[in-house]
Amino acid sequence: MVPEGGVIVSPTPSYLLYRTLAEIQGARHQEIPFGSDWRLDAAALPPGATLTFLSNPNSPSGTMVPVDELARWPTPLVLDEAYVDFAADSGLRLLKANERVIVTRSLSKSYSLAGMRFGFAVGSPAIIRQLYKVKDSYNCDVLSLAAATAAFEDQEHMRGNRAKILATRQRMTAALRRLGFTVTDSQSNFVWCRHMRPVKPIYEELKKRRILVRYMNYPAYGDGLRISVGSDAETDRLLEELAKII
Amino acid sequence: MVPEGGVIVSPTPSYLLYRTLAEIQGARHQEIPFGSDWRLDAAALPPGATLTFLSNPNSPSGTMVPVDELARWPTPLVLDEAYVDFAADSGLRLLKANERVIVTRSLSKSYSLAGMRFGFAVGSPAIIRQLYKVKDSYNCDVLSLAAATAAFEDQEHMRGNRAKILATRQRMTAALRRLGFTVTDSQSNFVWCRHMRPVKPIYEELKKRRILVRYMNYPAYGDGLRISVGSDAETDRLLEELAKII
Repeated sequence: MVPEGGVIVSPTPSYLLYRTLAEIQGARHQEIPFGSDWRLDAAALPPGATLTFLSNPNSPSGTMVPVDELARWPTPLVLDEAYVDFAADSGLRLLKANERVIVTRSLSKSYSLAGMRFGFAVGSPAIIRQLYKVKDSYNCDVLSLAAATAAFEDQEHMRGNRAKILATRQRMTAALRRLGFTVTDSQSNFVWCRHMRPVKPIYEELKKRRILVRYMNYPAYGDGLRISVGSDAETDRLLEELAKII
Repeated sequence: MVPEGGVIVSPTPSYLLYRTLAEIQGARHQEIPFGSDWRLDAAALPPGATLTFLSNPNSPSGTMVPVDELARWPTPLVLDEAYVDFAADSGLRLLKANERVIVTRSLSKSYSLAGMRFGFAVGSPAIIRQLYKVKDSYNCDVLSLAAATAAFEDQEHMRGNRAKILATRQRMTAALRRLGFTVTDSQSNFVWCRHMRPVKPIYEELKKRRILVRYMNYPAYGDGLRISVGSDAETDRLLEELAKII
């Protein structure tokens, strides 16, 4: 339970479920805007902010707030590192100096285990002890524990996939720019792009051709496309169709 | 979220986690005593009761509140039927007439899938729609869905296990009574027993012999042993050691 009157904060545009999940727990949620360079300014925190959730790398932008700028974040900080294996840095080193940082990870992205719904948190013993108080006494199911253990033990497989995704991401970014897209440099397994032309019709045209990308529209920010980095063949197909559409 | 001021009720002696889980959600919880015949009296409900959780069959007693006595229970009622496949009746038929009844089931007991942590709820569309509002948008993991589906499709396997457990339960109950235990007639896969002699030393002696039974002690009720119905060999071994101890 969040203490009465507490406010959970997360930046926008970002993962929309923070608000939903906060409200399900009876907590208030407030958005603070990312700076135009996708940095985060502690001055934007509302009075009474008790906890910040930050997806870092962020979705949909794929950008990362520089880790060292978060070292003295004024509230307890949950760093949602679901996409961090595709990035150049991670916030784990913050934990030593700041026991109010909690890093959460998922096996759904870089470890390719989306179907297992397996995640974990890294934090100071003092924080983890508190989390145990509200954790169900039953653990994850045995098959997901076995799958997660096997995945962790096969780092080589993960690194191989990551290398492929980073190479394709680079190629896709360059090609999208040649097609006139404004592509944000990504540290994730997707790229965020906008265009001088409205992007919603582009999304709809792609959908007709059975290529699914994510159309996102944020109040006070605007819209864009979040395109996952797929296989080489999928990426070729996407770029071909986009060239026809634009 | 339970509305402010609401009280979740569950009977005692029963499953202890209802209180813990209610408090984790910020709800108040109040116990009402079972009658001496393990029936439940709606007159015992405190003012402001908003929801009742009833383990039926109950743990640790293995007893069942007669289903038809619950048809007009004054509050919304969650019938926790984790053990119902070992019983002679079930509350599913209440749903037709009373849309405030929710039946929950588990695959951890009769379907032998404790490691999968798989459960489900059955309720009126109106109630289930409300539950969806606070359900995480991600579903169970794919392997637990596959395991649950396979388990449901193999009813014969479940019924075979159940038949074995019911036969062993009957034999175990009779043998425990010959050893001087007061054994409550069970509709579950365990039996609840008490003895003229203190049972805690019996529990400790069994533990020394590497036989684990559950010692439970409830304020305002007293203590007893909850003994799971195991295989025939396990039951023989239990009864042998009990004969030596007593």
